[in-house]
Amino acid sequence: MKKVVLAFSGGLDTSFCCIYLSKDLGMEVHSVVINTGGFSAEEIKNIEARAYELGVKSHTTIDETEDYYRDTIKYLIFGNVLKNATYPLSVSAERVCQATAIANYAKKIGAACVAHGSTGAGNDQVRFDMIFNTLIPGVEIITPIRDLKLSREAEIEYLGKHGFPYSAEKAKYSINKGLWGTSVGGAETLTSNQYLPESAWPTAVTSTEPQTITVDFEKGEPVALNGNKIGPVAVIQQLQDLAQPYGIGRDIHVGDTIIGIKGRVGFEAAAPLILVKAHHTLEKHTLTKWQLSWKDQIAGFYGNWMHEGQMHDPVMRDIEAFLASSQETVSGRVIVELHPHRFVIIGIESAHDLMNNEFGSYGEMNEGYTGDDVKGFSKIFGNQTIIWHKVNNKG
Amino acid sequence: MKKVVLAFSGGLDTSFCCIYLSKDLGMEVHSVVINTGGFSAEEIKNIEARAYELGVKSHTTIDETEDYYRDTIKYLIFGNVLKNATYPLSVSAERVCQATAIANYAKKIGAACVAHGSTGAGNDQVRFDMIFNTLIPGVEIITPIRDLKLSREAEIEYLGKHGFPYSAEKAKYSINKGLWGTSVGGAETLTSNQYLPESAWPTAVTSTEPQTITVDFEKGEPVALNGNKIGPVAVIQQLQDLAQPYGIGRDIHVGDTIIGIKGRVGFEAAAPLILVKAHHTLEKHTLTKWQLSWKDQIAGFYGNWMHEGQMHDPVMRDIEAFLASSQETVSGRVIVELHPHRFVIIGIESAHDLMNNEFGSYGEMNEGYTGDDVKGFSKIFGNQTIIWHKVNNKG
Amino acid sequence: MKKVVLAFSGGLDTSFCCIYLSKDLGMEVHSVVINTGGFSAEEIKNIEARAYELGVKSHTTIDETEDYYRDTIKYLIFGNVLKNATYPLSVSAERVCQATAIANYAKKIGAACVAHGSTGAGNDQVRFDMIFNTLIPGVEIITPIRDLKLSREAEIEYLGKHGFPYSAEKAKYSINKGLWGTSVGGAETLTSNQYLPESAWPTAVTSTEPQTITVDFEKGEPVALNGNKIGPVAVIQQLQDLAQPYGIGRDIHVGDTIIGIKGRVGFEAAAPLILVKAHHTLEKHTLTKWQLSWKDQIAGFYGNWMHEGQMHDPVMRDIEAFLASSQETVSGRVIVELHPHRFVIIGIESAHDLMNNEFGSYGEMNEGYTGDDVKGFSKIFGNQTIIWHKVNNKG
Amino acid sequence: MKKVVLAFSGGLDTSFCCIYLSKDLGMEVHSVVINTGGFSAEEIKNIEARAYELGVKSHTTIDETEDYYRDTIKYLIFGNVLKNATYPLSVSAERVCQATAIANYAKKIGAACVAHGSTGAGNDQVRFDMIFNTLIPGVEIITPIRDLKLSREAEIEYLGKHGFPYSAEKAKYSINKGLWGTSVGGAETLTSNQYLPESAWPTAVTSTEPQTITVDFEKGEPVALNGNKIGPVAVIQQLQDLAQPYGIGRDIHVGDTIIGIKGRVGFEAAAPLILVKAHHTLEKHTLTKWQLSWKDQIAGFYGNWMHEGQMHDPVMRDIEAFLASSQETVSGRVIVELHPHRFVIIGIESAHDLMNNEFGSYGEMNEGYTGDDVKGFSKIFGNQTIIWHKVNNKG
Repeated sequence: MKKVVLAFSGGLDTSFCCIYLSKDLGMEVHSVVINTGGFSAEEIKNIEARAYELGVKSHTTIDETEDYYRDTIKYLIFGNVLKNATYPLSVSAERVCQATAIANYAKKIGAACVAHGSTGAGNDQVRFDMIFNTLIPGVEIITPIRDLKLSREAEIEYLGKHGFPYSAEKAKYSINKGLWGTSVGGAETLTSNQYLPESAWPTAVTSTEPQTITVDFEKGEPVALNGNKIGPVAVIQQLQDLAQPYGIGRDIHVGDTIIGIKGRVGFEAAAPLILVKAHHTLEKHTLTKWQLSWKDQIAGFYGNWMHEGQMHDPVMRDIEAFLASSQETVSGRVIVELHPHRFVIIGIESAHDLMNNEFGSYGEMNEGYTGDDVKGFSKIFGNQTIIWHKVNNKG
Repeated sequence: MKKVVLAFSGGLDTSFCCIYLSKDLGMEVHSVVINTGGFSAEEIKNIEARAYELGVKSHTTIDETEDYYRDTIKYLIFGNVLKNATYPLSVSAERVCQATAIANYAKKIGAACVAHGSTGAGNDQVRFDMIFNTLIPGVEIITPIRDLKLSREAEIEYLGKHGFPYSAEKAKYSINKGLWGTSVGGAETLTSNQYLPESAWPTAVTSTEPQTITVDFEKGEPVALNGNKIGPVAVIQQLQDLAQPYGIGRDIHVGDTIIGIKGRVGFEAAAPLILVKAHHTLEKHTLTKWQLSWKDQIAGFYGNWMHEGQMHDPVMRDIEAFLASSQETVSGRVIVELHPHRFVIIGIESAHDLMNNEFGSYGEMNEGYTGDDVKGFSKIFGNQTIIWHKVNNKG
Repeated sequence: MKKVVLAFSGGLDTSFCCIYLSKDLGMEVHSVVINTGGFSAEEIKNIEARAYELGVKSHTTIDETEDYYRDTIKYLIFGNVLKNATYPLSVSAERVCQATAIANYAKKIGAACVAHGSTGAGNDQVRFDMIFNTLIPGVEIITPIRDLKLSREAEIEYLGKHGFPYSAEKAKYSINKGLWGTSVGGAETLTSNQYLPESAWPTAVTSTEPQTITVDFEKGEPVALNGNKIGPVAVIQQLQDLAQPYGIGRDIHVGDTIIGIKGRVGFEAAAPLILVKAHHTLEKHTLTKWQLSWKDQIAGFYGNWMHEGQMHDPVMRDIEAFLASSQETVSGRVIVELHPHRFVIIGIESAHDLMNNEFGSYGEMNEGYTGDDVKGFSKIFGNQTIIWHKVNNKG
Repeated sequence: MKKVVLAFSGGLDTSFCCIYLSKDLGMEVHSVVINTGGFSAEEIKNIEARAYELGVKSHTTIDETEDYYRDTIKYLIFGNVLKNATYPLSVSAERVCQATAIANYAKKIGAACVAHGSTGAGNDQVRFDMIFNTLIPGVEIITPIRDLKLSREAEIEYLGKHGFPYSAEKAKYSINKGLWGTSVGGAETLTSNQYLPESAWPTAVTSTEPQTITVDFEKGEPVALNGNKIGPVAVIQQLQDLAQPYGIGRDIHVGDTIIGIKGRVGFEAAAPLILVKAHHTLEKHTLTKWQLSWKDQIAGFYGNWMHEGQMHDPVMRDIEAFLASSQETVSGRVIVELHPHRFVIIGIESAHDLMNNEFGSYGEMNEGYTGDDVKGFSKIFGNQTIIWHKVNNKG
């Protein structure tokens, strides 16, 4: 019997796959769920129970939360990555991590096939396909939902016929929760001109009292919240618990899918938004102009290329080397004020702050250089444009 | 007697320059004030009165508001320019416009000299120097404040001695108002870790009732507010009057000055922030991936280079040609919700919207291509990385 | 009977397609050949004769040479495009032009199908597919060679069976000639470590006497050769006839195909190489630093994106707007010395030359600024790095 | 007596400085010469003798050849840096190395001042000033030639008066020799339209017999010549000795000086040109498309920023981290054919060659994917442009 590893979430699509792979294709199904910080212990237990109920040969839970931070989120923070100036790549980053972990698991247990429940309409199919093609090139990829193009109703009927009745009601919104934010799709996000209603957001706005918090960064990594040095993953999780009830970090992202169509998706991501903006502010104080400028350019590409599932292109390693090098002096404290639906970066404190009164204070006084120096500078700094206008008689 | 054109604002520094140029240097002073949308009719009248009181030979007011929009702001909108992801370049853009207008005026009246009241500590000195060096190369530049390094007290004493008593009290914050936003500097902005207090903001927060507005764009230009086609300058002005009382668009920018030090400045710029975000959202629906990507890169440079006073480098014309070309399909309506201290982009409506259900809807259904097409795409799109891993034995 | 437009060259593959489309698929075949400057009048006549011999319903020759220059080559010159610093995109540029012309022809005659003879191994299939999908979305694309995967021998047998004997000998090298260069593939180019032998090059080296020529550019376009104002297309053709017998512009390009594999191809392109280098030198004298720098970046992308067949992405129009704007002052004469296997750019003469002794001569004297100006400039230009080292104790 | 470190070359300008500093300024002169591979043992001895003859308190020779390679040239090779697609930065790179070494020496001996012989017309003054300002901020910079603006004749007269007769004849060309090439300036290079005559080139063309050589790279570094593993510095030196007599690598560079004027300079740099082209070819075989593309962009900036003396901006360390990471697989052999005045890259051999017949051979056969995969790819790869044309009725 052929061994197949199935990326399993316990939902309708992957439940269907489970039965289809074993009954119709006669395979030995090994289901696996990758936790990247989005599942609670209880959810993990339920998924496992569901898998065994559906008759899998084995079910495995792999916790990739720390790896996800270390290999992916860390660089999204270093790069201040917000796709299209908006979206922290909550889902895109996670899928890459999950597909990689599944591929490694399939290799480990010597599976002949790997299956995922993607449809033919989204980004995930490309990410899973490409990463499997790359990391486990001999292993066959099976995508029953994409191939059979079954309707939801047909899947439910199929499951029922095999003795697994499925509740027919469908959530109005499709929710995907992970360490780097939660996406919300459906109804309004399928239009161009409507916003999500209050009820669609997973986390209600219950915090109304403003509060001031601090985040400490060490070489670009968020290591402490309010002075407690708990490490990056815990900073993200605790900040998320603290800030999401303010309704911070909600927005709709519209952008290019890998397959060329435009897509729109809501998200709530309080911690990612706060951390990216806090980190960026600290960088504005501690990095040089060209460090900031080049980081913008290459991190924009890095985010897009990760979004397109190309995380295993070696150029990503090269960019990570750049980003890591740039964080050498990005250490210090950022002060942030939380309000309902928004936050304010109050300021920063850092031993590496280049805005140091000792070396001249903007608009007030100048140390280390004279007005004459600036006159000379202006002459030379504009010299080529001066010459251009003289030569071309435009002066 | 040598003719000198003086960039005049009516404040202490340029009042000092006025007397110093005529009394100490024996020049014929022609004061000029460039209105880029920041002065009211009354302020303009007061500045003129003050100039004649100080004994200028002539005083001229030049209204550059429309030119400022057409030559500069328009491209900042096209480029979604927010320096360091924050600042709409309120002051930087204006200075370039003012310096250019003053240079043209000096040429027109055949002045031998041109004077500005910049100190030796800021960006403006470089912008004025460079633009004068470029556009009126034979004309001598005089900068009494920078050269004499006088204290505020010494300036007041000098003015008093010449019969022009000056009220000694100094505003706590230095305010600069223009069509593209108002800057606020002083006290807290000279530190790295403090935010401006409520009292520092020129416009109090008096609007608390949320409201929904629309902005219509035609080829990238904001032409109508709430359906009234009033033209870009009026859209900016009326939107600013409507939205600033919500406290929208307040922030502190920290960034690199032209002279290498870091500077921090507060600003309130409701209309610029709303228009840039609204325009950018419309673009995400109507432009292709690589249009968005390249616009980001060249517009980032455009904003920085303008900030550094290099607006007359011909590369700026080349970038403007790119930006203008990219706006061909950026037409449609953007719906925005205003709330105290924040706004939400609800969505867009456009005949050029590429997120068109007819051609596939993200995550829901696929039209125009099949699941097999995507399988093939994934194979080829990842082909090089697949090969790389095979060759380098990393698979 | 369904009308099909067949991209026809008279070779084995498209001869096979011709019979296959009419006999096996029962279609009405309208063959078309697009001349982009690579075919002589005689070759065109032979292709037409061959088409009618194979029984096409109609055969059409479309001369796109001027359009090819105006829409494509012109911008490759403006952008100094040499892919991977080597290859003038001889074939890539041509295919885009041909596919576009064929699509327009298919639309004009109301064809239901369009056929091309590409195999499944190269770039051309993607270019043709994509451009047809874009410009004539309802028209079915037929690719017999790719689909049937027939061997050369099977094709010859099939043709023979239908009464069209084909000479079985195959040229050792596959040659593609066009206005912007000739490619040479086969044998050695399929390895990584061998170079093409002398006999493989279509044009023998027969010119050994060095000569000096001039090319005049107007706004970036090559308009005169040796002072004769014959227009761009004639400059390219006559320069090619003059310079190719020197063996100039021969090289092997290795680079990324659209489909992810690496490819290697020889080419001889004397005129393209000379014109790009001459034009670039003229630009170094007439453009500002940032014009040169941005042109490099966007033209690199332009060349790659064209190579990948994406010429109809609107971002290409935006880049062309940038490039055209940048050519405003790129007028003047370039002096070039031709030698066997190489050429030397002697120098340039231009009214827009920014290397004008009047404004300072490098390393010899300085006009327009003083040593003190440069001292001030050095202080300010290095200010941020100075501060960085002070703050971070690295001084 | 104040200690001054003088960057000394033994020429007229620095001889003048030597006397001027001790006699007129009453300083204790410590002369230093930094050998970056351009001086022979005999030249070094002559410079030392000359220094003591001029009465210096101490003279020191510092050999920086290995450091120069390791800190600078290595990255120019990694980045395939040819400024303006022509110039290997022979002089620019060296000056940065020299200024850094001098600064470190001045710090070591506790000098109060540092002096260099730059004029006010070139790039070197800025490089020396900036690097001294950055690395030894308290140390005073003295530039007698720039400040006194003496003519050559006046300098000779001054030296004669102090008992140091100087031969009045001036070389027609100013030559600067270093490990990474030799620059040649004067006469023709001060015009825009003339080339250097044969007699101007330091190395005559004496080798006429073609020969084939090999260079082996390990992680981007040239480690062996013709199979002899002699290390990078020796590869550069021996290859230069071998190839320069062919007249290879001669050209004239025209480009932007730091001070805004255009400058033109001849150079002969056989080894740098061969190594850059050989290395680039190896990369085209071993790196992915986006590695090549991003390397181009950041290496272009790296070269320009180094040229402008900004080597101590920390962004340069970040770029070096990127470049070093990208070299992981750039190992293999490059075969090069030397001819009079030119060279041909024959091909490469590498275990990391991505052009591997196993995975599909360009234009011949396809492995690892099918024609149907490419059809699907073409559909999706062009999907956005297809949609754009449908939406905008341009199809």
